Amino acid sequence: MKKRIVFDVLNNDNGQIKAIQAAKKFISENPDYQLILVGDANVINKELGEFKNNIEVVDNNFIVSIKESPRDVLRQKSSMSEAFEILAEDKADAILSSGDSGAYITLSSLKVKRLNGISRPAFMPIVPSLSLKNFLLLDCGANINIKEEFFLEWAKVASVYYKLINNSDETPKIGLLNLGTEDYKGDEVHKAANNLLKNYETDQFNYYGFIEPGQAISGDFQIVLADGYGGNIFLKTMENTFSGFGKLLKNIIYKNLFTKISGLWLKPGLRKMKNRYDYRNTGGAYIVGLNKVVVKAHGGSDEIAFYNALNQVKKALENDVINKLQQNLGQDNE
Amino acid sequence: MKKRIVFDVLNNDNGQIKAIQAAKKFISENPDYQLILVGDANVINKELGEFKNNIEVVDNNFIVSIKESPRDVLRQKSSMSEAFEILAEDKADAILSSGDSGAYITLSSLKVKRLNGISRPAFMPIVPSLSLKNFLLLDCGANINIKEEFFLEWAKVASVYYKLINNSDETPKIGLLNLGTEDYKGDEVHKAANNLLKNYETDQFNYYGFIEPGQAISGDFQIVLADGYGGNIFLKTMENTFSGFGKLLKNIIYKNLFTKISGLWLKPGLRKMKNRYDYRNTGGAYIVGLNKVVVKAHGGSDEIAFYNALNQVKKALENDVINKLQQNLGQDNE
Repeated sequence: MKKRIVFDVLNNDNGQIKAIQAAKKFISENPDYQLILVGDANVINKELGEFKNNIEVVDNNFIVSIKESPRDVLRQKSSMSEAFEILAEDKADAILSSGDSGAYITLSSLKVKRLNGISRPAFMPIVPSLSLKNFLLLDCGANINIKEEFFLEWAKVASVYYKLINNSDETPKIGLLNLGTEDYKGDEVHKAANNLLKNYETDQFNYYGFIEPGQAISGDFQIVLADGYGGNIFLKTMENTFSGFGKLLKNIIYKNLFTKISGLWLKPGLRKMKNRYDYRNTGGAYIVGLNKVVVKAHGGSDEIAFYNALNQVKKALENDVINKLQQNLGQDNE
Repeated sequence: MKKRIVFDVLNNDNGQIKAIQAAKKFISENPDYQLILVGDANVINKELGEFKNNIEVVDNNFIVSIKESPRDVLRQKSSMSEAFEILAEDKADAILSSGDSGAYITLSSLKVKRLNGISRPAFMPIVPSLSLKNFLLLDCGANINIKEEFFLEWAKVASVYYKLINNSDETPKIGLLNLGTEDYKGDEVHKAANNLLKNYETDQFNYYGFIEPGQAISGDFQIVLADGYGGNIFLKTMENTFSGFGKLLKNIIYKNLFTKISGLWLKPGLRKMKNRYDYRNTGGAYIVGLNKVVVKAHGGSDEIAFYNALNQVKKALENDVINKLQQNLGQDNE
């Protein structure tokens, strides 16, 4: 049976075309997949051309939006919501969208079943570190109100994802983001979580303890646990400092003829660095803890970003991550 | 009467000498100040030389340390603790140390009286933004458990500091750091604080609403409010991303002869950028909300950093910030 991905193409800052182009590229390389695009059928069908027969289209021209409360999404018959319906009815194995994170997380929580033993799904991007390795950061915005056991559950889930994403049997090293490394620092929930993780015996991961942002950035850890608020502040600060630094550097290079020529010599290295920290190359974020593969692409995704996000979905499906997680968490609960 | 600063010189990663050198430089330029150095009297007296008659020395060779709980500091007769005693007995108007932040905050809270109308002191560094302006960030690690009214109190205090530090009558624009700009985002305390600040009428500051890290980094706001946890994660992430980016850039420049020569052409611009983000040039952090001037220098301070921190203390004293705050907060409570 073909693996099926439902793809909400309506929600993107750059319009639908980039998403549709990525879908075409993906399906031409992966004929064993079934893609269901949800969005403006007029635009999609026009853009699909010869791919019309390979890609299913669901017409929905309503962009999800949150005005007052995340619950707004439930009242809207949006493309995102319709994509989740398709997933919930088991007509797809995975979902992809670049729409509003808050809406996506809310719909994920309400429309998709959680895995056994998981209290809350978590938003888990793949983050480039200063070393050559990426790390998994979770949670990164889905959960503001947290309990200590969430962190242990997320540690278990992320460990399975880590091995899968990196095709590796290496036991990941996990740190818990906090405002200091000492055990006495942080609020009661963080301290309880640290304690819980330190005393939890497993061969699935190595829990190190509290870590500060610098240790996460340097790439010493394969998985960084955080509450949704702290993880979100951390990631956005890192991204914005990096891009801001890039702009300052550009100004320095554009100053005069000599600096411009110097910039040319440095260009290959700088481009490599920029690519390394380009969200388009690390792909989207997983929403984990659910019994379906849920991937969120960046709001400003272009064709490359969407294509990579589709491959990220593929990786999870090919590796049968949901079943592996179910087994893993099941064993654990016995 | 001379203005008096008590300076705990014992607590620094680089030993006492740098702190003592900075003290000498400061006192030679500011003979109307009285400095009281607390530390190893043998080392201090040897280093002071001809300055022995201008600078008071209190012998204490015990470095503060927290093992189990911040309350440890109360049981230790450390140099930091002794410096706070001197302040508490009103033998000094201000205190400076580069010692452990946790210990410093704990002692500040316990040994120094709070200003009228202030529930909790806050840790407030001056942070360089991507624009040419610095912003004040508070709280940045002192308060993990927060209430909505703290943010309003800190907004009032920081507004007075902002005008003083910048010799400006400009009304500062204030944002509250959160994981999104929408009013419905964040936990209950953040939402309540946002509401409280939005409905508070004052000509002391302009409250904008929730902001994300990128808006703080870009320099759009003069004051950034945060809970101690989020503020701390934000600042450390910014600092570590910036220094990490610098290291990557260095590797690119050191690659071969041509890139090295290119690096030379870019050096003036790069050095300027580095200086701009060098903590030594923005000075230490204020601990605000107390009825004394309390400044924390960076743990790795050198002579320049300490000298700037002493001048930061001076600025607060010369501008009579404590009285101004008392008046301001007093009016407000009427």
